[in-house]
Amino acid sequence: MQQYSNSTKPKPAPSHQMDSPSVNSSADVAVSEVVANKPAAMRLFSEIPTSRPTTPLLDTIESPADLKPLSQEQLLTLADELREYLLYSAGQSGGHFGANLGVVELTVALHYLLDTPNDKLVWDVGHQAYAHKVLTGRRDRLSSIRSKQGLTAFPERQESEYDTFGVGHSSTSISAGLGMSLALRHLKSDAKVACVIGDGAMTGGMAFEALNDAVQQNADLLVVLNDNDMSISCSIGGFSRHLAMLWESGYQVDITAKGKPKLTHRPEMPLSERRARHSALRDIPKVADNLFKAIGFSYFGPFDGHDLPELLRVLERAKNVSGPVLVHVYTTKGKGFIPAEGDPVTYHAISKLPQPQQQSNESTTAVQTAAPKKKYSQVFGEFLCDKAAVDNKLIAITPAMEEGSGMTEFAKQYPEQFYDVAIAEQHAVTLAAGMATLDIKPIVAIYSTFLQRGYDQLIHDVALQNLDVTFGIDRAGLVGEDGATHAGVFDLAYMRCVPNLVIATPKDENECYHLLNTCYEYKGATAVRYPRGTGPGVEITKPAQSYEVGKAVVEAVYHSQDSASNSNPYKLALLAFGPMVATADAAAKALMADTDLEGPVEISVVNMRWVKPLDTQLIDELIAKGYTHIVTLEEHVVMGGAGSAVNEYLLNHISGMKQQLDIKNIGIADEFIAHGSHDEQLADCGLDVAGVTSQLRSLFTVQ
Amino acid sequence: MQQYSNSTKPKPAPSHQMDSPSVNSSADVAVSEVVANKPAAMRLFSEIPTSRPTTPLLDTIESPADLKPLSQEQLLTLADELREYLLYSAGQSGGHFGANLGVVELTVALHYLLDTPNDKLVWDVGHQAYAHKVLTGRRDRLSSIRSKQGLTAFPERQESEYDTFGVGHSSTSISAGLGMSLALRHLKSDAKVACVIGDGAMTGGMAFEALNDAVQQNADLLVVLNDNDMSISCSIGGFSRHLAMLWESGYQVDITAKGKPKLTHRPEMPLSERRARHSALRDIPKVADNLFKAIGFSYFGPFDGHDLPELLRVLERAKNVSGPVLVHVYTTKGKGFIPAEGDPVTYHAISKLPQPQQQSNESTTAVQTAAPKKKYSQVFGEFLCDKAAVDNKLIAITPAMEEGSGMTEFAKQYPEQFYDVAIAEQHAVTLAAGMATLDIKPIVAIYSTFLQRGYDQLIHDVALQNLDVTFGIDRAGLVGEDGATHAGVFDLAYMRCVPNLVIATPKDENECYHLLNTCYEYKGATAVRYPRGTGPGVEITKPAQSYEVGKAVVEAVYHSQDSASNSNPYKLALLAFGPMVATADAAAKALMADTDLEGPVEISVVNMRWVKPLDTQLIDELIAKGYTHIVTLEEHVVMGGAGSAVNEYLLNHISGMKQQLDIKNIGIADEFIAHGSHDEQLADCGLDVAGVTSQLRSLFTVQ
Repeated sequence: MQQYSNSTKPKPAPSHQMDSPSVNSSADVAVSEVVANKPAAMRLFSEIPTSRPTTPLLDTIESPADLKPLSQEQLLTLADELREYLLYSAGQSGGHFGANLGVVELTVALHYLLDTPNDKLVWDVGHQAYAHKVLTGRRDRLSSIRSKQGLTAFPERQESEYDTFGVGHSSTSISAGLGMSLALRHLKSDAKVACVIGDGAMTGGMAFEALNDAVQQNADLLVVLNDNDMSISCSIGGFSRHLAMLWESGYQVDITAKGKPKLTHRPEMPLSERRARHSALRDIPKVADNLFKAIGFSYFGPFDGHDLPELLRVLERAKNVSGPVLVHVYTTKGKGFIPAEGDPVTYHAISKLPQPQQQSNESTTAVQTAAPKKKYSQVFGEFLCDKAAVDNKLIAITPAMEEGSGMTEFAKQYPEQFYDVAIAEQHAVTLAAGMATLDIKPIVAIYSTFLQRGYDQLIHDVALQNLDVTFGIDRAGLVGEDGATHAGVFDLAYMRCVPNLVIATPKDENECYHLLNTCYEYKGATAVRYPRGTGPGVEITKPAQSYEVGKAVVEAVYHSQDSASNSNPYKLALLAFGPMVATADAAAKALMADTDLEGPVEISVVNMRWVKPLDTQLIDELIAKGYTHIVTLEEHVVMGGAGSAVNEYLLNHISGMKQQLDIKNIGIADEFIAHGSHDEQLADCGLDVAGVTSQLRSLFTVQ
Repeated sequence: MQQYSNSTKPKPAPSHQMDSPSVNSSADVAVSEVVANKPAAMRLFSEIPTSRPTTPLLDTIESPADLKPLSQEQLLTLADELREYLLYSAGQSGGHFGANLGVVELTVALHYLLDTPNDKLVWDVGHQAYAHKVLTGRRDRLSSIRSKQGLTAFPERQESEYDTFGVGHSSTSISAGLGMSLALRHLKSDAKVACVIGDGAMTGGMAFEALNDAVQQNADLLVVLNDNDMSISCSIGGFSRHLAMLWESGYQVDITAKGKPKLTHRPEMPLSERRARHSALRDIPKVADNLFKAIGFSYFGPFDGHDLPELLRVLERAKNVSGPVLVHVYTTKGKGFIPAEGDPVTYHAISKLPQPQQQSNESTTAVQTAAPKKKYSQVFGEFLCDKAAVDNKLIAITPAMEEGSGMTEFAKQYPEQFYDVAIAEQHAVTLAAGMATLDIKPIVAIYSTFLQRGYDQLIHDVALQNLDVTFGIDRAGLVGEDGATHAGVFDLAYMRCVPNLVIATPKDENECYHLLNTCYEYKGATAVRYPRGTGPGVEITKPAQSYEVGKAVVEAVYHSQDSASNSNPYKLALLAFGPMVATADAAAKALMADTDLEGPVEISVVNMRWVKPLDTQLIDELIAKGYTHIVTLEEHVVMGGAGSAVNEYLLNHISGMKQQLDIKNIGIADEFIAHGSHDEQLADCGLDVAGVTSQLRSLFTVQ
């Protein structure tokens, strides 16, 4: 099953392959006494194990306390076992991958040195926390990660006392850690706080805000900068260049036994570990200006984040330095797994390995299904390419989500019209606004959940000035395995209240394509909101059209057999937004087929298409036609959502409620929805066909 | 009227007092030829002129083009006249003050050197843009600033082609300017872009995001860092310390004629100009690590931002350096006005000088009014002090709004429980969340409009984890003269959709005090939303109480004379939120006094008090009592607001609309509301007593 490669490194020393180590057998080796001998090389893997590997030492670790008696040799073995176990588990569950392999040594070192959970350890963008979960009592549940009722993909406070802070979004760890540090000071506790933050997350402005404040407060705070040279796609910008310079300089700010800085030469790394981008940096000053020192942090580094003995030496000293301290370590995403080291983008996250029985099932399914479905992000990318081919004014902007937003092909074809601004949502929005002041037509590709980060900029810089910016809002609605932290279920509420903003909700791939075009062509601030994953498989009819803004479409009108002969049937209008159009249609069909329904029934299924402006004319027409029952459907919280817009119109503009209208809003209830598959989430929320049908049927029952 | 002081500086040279300069008389002195002679000292003022000063040179400037032919001597004179004119105008209109006096020389230099509006000049937090407005054709309208239909307090694109970007919120200029620079590159224009940003605004994370990206794009962008040593209260944190170090080092990165950096000694400033904080910095390295160079900017400075010839020399050279360039200048808020230089906090903004006839009016009014009213921010501050006296777990956090949020006294009494985190709203929210994980009870004081900056953190870090954080949301509703950029009219919509959040809307000072207490005592995420300015004057009854969460109060029930004898009167319930309770009550009284109303009428005025959870029990009771007409009232946009919550409840939970309910939502329409006095804004929105009465009366007419 598993294979060990030793292509570039010496074979692992036999001592790492120890059997059943006795947890108590090793002497209490104080870390400060750790010998500076280089460890024998770590084990390397070239395949993902498909059966549970043998991890005798790891199996003894039920909590970080079990790490304390281990010798340095044992810790090295543990790191190897942990890495192999992470590989195996990722194959079972899918999920984030590269980042977790990159922090194996760091996680072992921190949990060895800190007294967690008394000391507080905060992981930034928690998808690097799998090793942490394994060492904190959740080893055997790791392969349940991301599945319903399994472990969450990120640290979560309710899951473990070792998860000090929920960290699904980036760049929060220093703020949260500083809050803890100041709270501990106020509580007169001497517990320590350490934050681990990647170089990509560090570009998010709030990390800088937190650095600034940590110095102001002279807080005791250890920040470990895990410089793995990339955010999800590729860490970019001045900050990343700065880190590269610190590395390339060949110097290192080492830490003395007394915790003082000492400038030394950086121990040379094997050439193979040098990263390609550094070759581009020539003629740099021997010791560059240091951003962290400039802001007032004590800075140590850079150090090899895979050199466990070195990490133990450095972090043991650094954790006792008072005031804000930053330790800069460089690691490799996917470290130890050879295919991932060479291709970190592909291995950022992986899918489950196919299980034997699943494989046959899936191939059967494949035969039965029609043409392969497109992801909405692909539709977005396709629109960008098609439009840019005929419109040179188009510029596309992403905050570090090139692949996720389907922009890879566009970036390749139109590099001069593509901007990846790093994890910097606020900046992305205002950058677009700045462009739009000068006859450029920017499109911001952003996930619904991350637009929350650029909300003030959306209001203040774009909508208030009514600038011609188009937002492609991806991952709108429930998002499945990433769970509540990444759900895009508030966007309609927080955008609908903003004047000038036009908001579209396509029901399928084809409509998404044309709504993107419509909004792009519209002179003003617009947003197209589409879901994660694939659509229903509707082919795109090109060329791009422009729909009428604010115009809904009646998709279908269903009559029960006896309704034609009856002049006064029960009339129900389903006003559906986005993918709920198909659900509404299926539910309507199910209702019509329901033989228990009494009396003549007419159901109209309406694709509302626009949340703002709302097609109030169509609503007026429905009322005029005698539709007394109106139900809105959306994959969004009911509170303040699209249905709420319909309510506002009906109540304030249809004169009197004399007509005895019966209105119901179907959507997500007022709670955070936990992770699970998207289908499971919909079912839990009553938003699948069965759930909607049942909710609609209850209307008839009330009659 | 005006007085010139020469206490610390030599008398102004007679040449600055030139009469009627001929615009075309001076030779074309190229800036690069400007002599390095120190200019004669600027004129200093010790009083605000109450009549229009004589400004013969300024009177000839209708646009920046008129600056071009001026000699350096004339530019110096112009700066003096401009300063005096700003003083006069501020006395007439009130408004921001210190920042504008501080950028007189900078504004003259930039408009002289740049070819605006072809070149793009972006002011960060535009309240430093008064001098800019004067030089760009708006001189004679300046004293109309902030009044209805007068100039806006900030640059606004619709007001002038010289106002490239609306900048009411902080830290946006570099993003917007970078957007312009990249757009110009794409359009193959060689127009230049310059951003002016203060040191306070630079602490906002998005400024850092923009710096990072500007380097990535290698954009031609000139950033002028206006280091005036303070944000609204006092610039704080590592970044501010860094700037102080750059200054205190005694060195300066000068710019050569070829645009290269050249390290020199900084020309000594008079001792009187040294700022007090610098004396605290000892033993600093001669040349500190430079943050801007670290991030990849070309850095020049620090330079004296009041030395106009020096500014002209430096900026002329810097504007031609390719790539991202930062010029660091230090200025003094309130420069040239002696009282302001000594007390920049007081002089951040000033009120109108009393006009002779106004004075007598006001004193008359003063005699007639009752006890002095408290500002809501004072109530907040009072609550903090009272609570902290009995609860050591309380910690209060503000993003740079200590005075504005009424926290000065608290900060003085409880310095260890007070955190001003600088302009850093994202960080402020997550810092509080971090504290709340450790049995500390943080209160975040934040303006409604600025919470938009911390929205993702509110959802993701506070509400999702249901942490015990209390938000004191100030300036909720319309805010008067600051206009649309600072209006707090979206908070209910963007907060209401977030699960776990409890939202309270006090109707007066006393209720505000007790709701703050109630929310503070509540275990979970809460927000109390209160308006700008003073309340109705209701005294606070201490000690602090805890209200029942989610429980509304019927304030009054009015019966028309004939309603008692009639078993079926027309029943109207006014469900009012916050300050609209008083408006609703006054409107109800007006209606009852209306002899034109036909038939018996009963009106209930309800103080809803809570937007979330809504008092649905009370609503049920009203329905049961036969209240068929329900009107919601709020100082917030209707879309998604508190009324919308009432709609959702009524439509989804009152079974069938059989009862022929008639529901109306009164609030702000779907548009941005321009500046004016708060009363004018309310009247324009139909939210004053007359407007509400009229809207209510129309309900009866419809009957």
